[in-house]
Amino acid sequence: MKIAMIQMDVVYNKEQNISHAVELIDRACAEEHPDFVVLPEMFCCPYSNKYFREYGETLNGPAQKALAECAKRNQIYLVGGSLPELEDDRVYNTSFVYDREGNQIARHRKAHLFDIDVPGGQRFFESEVLTPGEETTTFETEFGRMGLCICFDFRSQEIAKTMGDRGAKVIFVPAAFNMTTGPAHWEILFRSRAIDNQLFTLATAPARDPNGEYVSYANSIAVDPWGTVLKRLGTDEETGFVEFDLTRIDAVRTQLPIIASRKPKLYD
Amino acid sequence: MKIAMIQMDVVYNKEQNISHAVELIDRACAEEHPDFVVLPEMFCCPYSNKYFREYGETLNGPAQKALAECAKRNQIYLVGGSLPELEDDRVYNTSFVYDREGNQIARHRKAHLFDIDVPGGQRFFESEVLTPGEETTTFETEFGRMGLCICFDFRSQEIAKTMGDRGAKVIFVPAAFNMTTGPAHWEILFRSRAIDNQLFTLATAPARDPNGEYVSYANSIAVDPWGTVLKRLGTDEETGFVEFDLTRIDAVRTQLPIIASRKPKLYD
Repeated sequence: MKIAMIQMDVVYNKEQNISHAVELIDRACAEEHPDFVVLPEMFCCPYSNKYFREYGETLNGPAQKALAECAKRNQIYLVGGSLPELEDDRVYNTSFVYDREGNQIARHRKAHLFDIDVPGGQRFFESEVLTPGEETTTFETEFGRMGLCICFDFRSQEIAKTMGDRGAKVIFVPAAFNMTTGPAHWEILFRSRAIDNQLFTLATAPARDPNGEYVSYANSIAVDPWGTVLKRLGTDEETGFVEFDLTRIDAVRTQLPIIASRKPKLYD
Repeated sequence: MKIAMIQMDVVYNKEQNISHAVELIDRACAEEHPDFVVLPEMFCCPYSNKYFREYGETLNGPAQKALAECAKRNQIYLVGGSLPELEDDRVYNTSFVYDREGNQIARHRKAHLFDIDVPGGQRFFESEVLTPGEETTTFETEFGRMGLCICFDFRSQEIAKTMGDRGAKVIFVPAAFNMTTGPAHWEILFRSRAIDNQLFTLATAPARDPNGEYVSYANSIAVDPWGTVLKRLGTDEETGFVEFDLTRIDAVRTQLPIIASRKPKLYD
């Protein structure tokens, strides 16, 4: 199972972001023939409350159409990062997933909104603009079941465990940590969720723009079930490729029986 | 709240291990006046299935008496690492905790037994000799509620979360990782549990004997709720001191509302 991680620059123009994403996906597919391509959180909208509604779109809007066509043209599974989704007067931070025929096979609305206030560090309140989703999301592929959530969702050990218990082999996480939480928690989050749930984790972030309103930590990352970092990108725009040997899941679960040794009677 | 972490050598003589532990505790208390002292897992017994029964003792056996007296004499809370506890024909890996008057205020029997088989790495099956405990353990102190578990117990994200949800401010973990799992998972485990549950974690291990039957990773560690390593010992016998500012718990929970943002409806 080969995956392309698209860590891309995001600019203040939605159409330009969409066509740039499509161009990067087409190029990655032509060069390396991946099975999955993963875009970053808010790949076509600057990460700021003031742009989410303006850059938003309803079901089957232009970004979604471009992604569906791109998945079909390249015959890939496409985890479409996320974009602002409009429904009635609500705005969601939503990830759409397409199969090799361009069918939408999953939609995850970010459920845990990012409200943070670190003195001297980052302040951001997504909940001032966004409406949270109300579902945990997994989807089926020819490689088995996959998990999907967005950035701060993955701070929840419970949602990660729920996806793992439902049989997810890989948890895909379009994400955009910042320069406070990134250095402190990014790598440890993706490694520890992989170790605790004995599965693969993969996060794709926007490239870093040091002058942006919200500075992305970048460092897109892929981790195996033993917690080994298989791929870690830098801070600039870059497409990374990684191969997952899914048989590692059962191997690690046999060697180190964390899941098999659970004692539910002891847990509240 | 000041804590002494006793990373001690363990030899093939139970009485000698007990008197050495008492000597180290007395010295630590005379020098630094800690509120808590924490011993390692199996501080008075080599870590091997073949010694657990021979070095074991029933309720109020000699190691427990020595610990109770030592706690009272030094007016400390003493987290007594762990020792093989005998009851009927069963053997448990048990941690006893004493208060400043020498009263036993907690007893935790290791509930998740360590059965591991990494090809080319570590093989160990505790369950061949030990009986697992059946309870999650917290206890009350003048500093608030504390959590307690032993080594492989802490591999369970569920038991850590349960202790956190019950109000534990610090989770004490007498532990003995090995040279396979230690380099791979030791630090990330204690840091990620601290971050995810927004509390302090503290692990005390036996010192490393490279010629021992089971080679302890050592590296006793103390982590704050932001995931910062406050203290990390080396591999030799050493007593480390660390201060916990418990007000950090509420501060971190306010800045980064991981716990407050939980959505139980989404979790199985």
